[in-house]
Amino acid sequence: MVGKSQIKFIKSLQQKKYRIQYGMFVVEGIKTVQELLNSHFIPHMIFCTDPDILVAEKGLVEIISETDLKKMSTLKNPNKVLGVFKFNEPQRIDEDDWILALDDIRDPGNLGTIIRLCDWFGISHLLCSKNTVDCYNPKVLQASMGSIARVNIVYTDLVEFIKNTRLPIYGTYMNSNSIYSSTLPKKGILIMGNEANGISNDVGKMITSKVSIPHFGANATESLNVATATAILLNEIRRT
Amino acid sequence: MVGKSQIKFIKSLQQKKYRIQYGMFVVEGIKTVQELLNSHFIPHMIFCTDPDILVAEKGLVEIISETDLKKMSTLKNPNKVLGVFKFNEPQRIDEDDWILALDDIRDPGNLGTIIRLCDWFGISHLLCSKNTVDCYNPKVLQASMGSIARVNIVYTDLVEFIKNTRLPIYGTYMNSNSIYSSTLPKKGILIMGNEANGISNDVGKMITSKVSIPHFGANATESLNVATATAILLNEIRRT
Repeated sequence: MVGKSQIKFIKSLQQKKYRIQYGMFVVEGIKTVQELLNSHFIPHMIFCTDPDILVAEKGLVEIISETDLKKMSTLKNPNKVLGVFKFNEPQRIDEDDWILALDDIRDPGNLGTIIRLCDWFGISHLLCSKNTVDCYNPKVLQASMGSIARVNIVYTDLVEFIKNTRLPIYGTYMNSNSIYSSTLPKKGILIMGNEANGISNDVGKMITSKVSIPHFGANATESLNVATATAILLNEIRRT
Repeated sequence: MVGKSQIKFIKSLQQKKYRIQYGMFVVEGIKTVQELLNSHFIPHMIFCTDPDILVAEKGLVEIISETDLKKMSTLKNPNKVLGVFKFNEPQRIDEDDWILALDDIRDPGNLGTIIRLCDWFGISHLLCSKNTVDCYNPKVLQASMGSIARVNIVYTDLVEFIKNTRLPIYGTYMNSNSIYSSTLPKKGILIMGNEANGISNDVGKMITSKVSIPHFGANATESLNVATATAILLNEIRRT
């Protein structure tokens, strides 16, 4: 039996201000909770409707009813497990490989998908501008499918960060050089801009290499969704 | 002033069964409605809160209040224009280029993003299995950002279609040949599978070329979102 105050606490973590106040966040689903348990994230409490589906430290998991799980969950169909984890201390950014930097990505689904892409393409460090959506937002976590366990996400002032790096700064702009014919370096920073407005002016001034993704067909759409554009660019970076 | 029965009719088109009954669908937003007006889709009625923002045939556009627009809209913040269009007659599939085929894609956001990708990469024909989400679903249309105006979408039995084509059939499978080292032909059919289950067994048996998207990093995620995987594969097809 889970107490009312516990349910209230867990539900409060749906809001960013309470996540910051407590330094904790909620994830749901067997797969994601298990991946976080296997990572450097520190669990605070784990609730589960089935004693046999998780590999976890003894005493950490509390078995609860489906009714109680439903009370805590943000999902229409809760998936057996809910975990509360502590925020991760951001690690030092390693400048020995490509780094992805997000300039005000607002859509939680896009951020989650991009975290999953970083994981797939072995991009260890993801920089987010301060106005980028919170990576502990439930919708981000759902779209990232546990990949948050393997990507170091750091919220920072992008302009300040770029000032202090010697890495080349890449950004996509219409009508610039095709990414297909660009020789990409072994390391650099790839900037992806906001869904509606693209890369901000202040960050844009610091781009050293403008590239474009070619489009095909006579009257094609002018833009790609930012997550699919990121997929194409990370693929280009890694395939060389 | 818009009548109650008109509003009821428009709202009914949010459901697939009424879309099929009337052979019509609703799109919202200036950009998407304008793109459909410029395409081969036939408008049935267009509502607009501002007389000067659309380029349309005289007499086609009815100027309405924001209150009335809100009553018809599925959006929290309706965007000035709402159009009702007639279903498009599917065109003949042209087998002279790459064709994308979706095997039971269920998420409307994924289908919309994939339609936008087809538009970007000049893929004119998109085959959808009968269980793929309806392309006139409001969430699909919103994610496709008007690209539905330029992509011929045909719902069909994929197995039957493949039986009658001589094109090579490509599908992605873990641990198969890397797409980077595959020499891709000038034309073919690329199959993308369901979000949870991948390519179905019946369609899988007909694949002639299995390829994989390489992943990087030691403990990477096992899977990519289907829309981002489609982005990478269409990019590989076009970049050669």
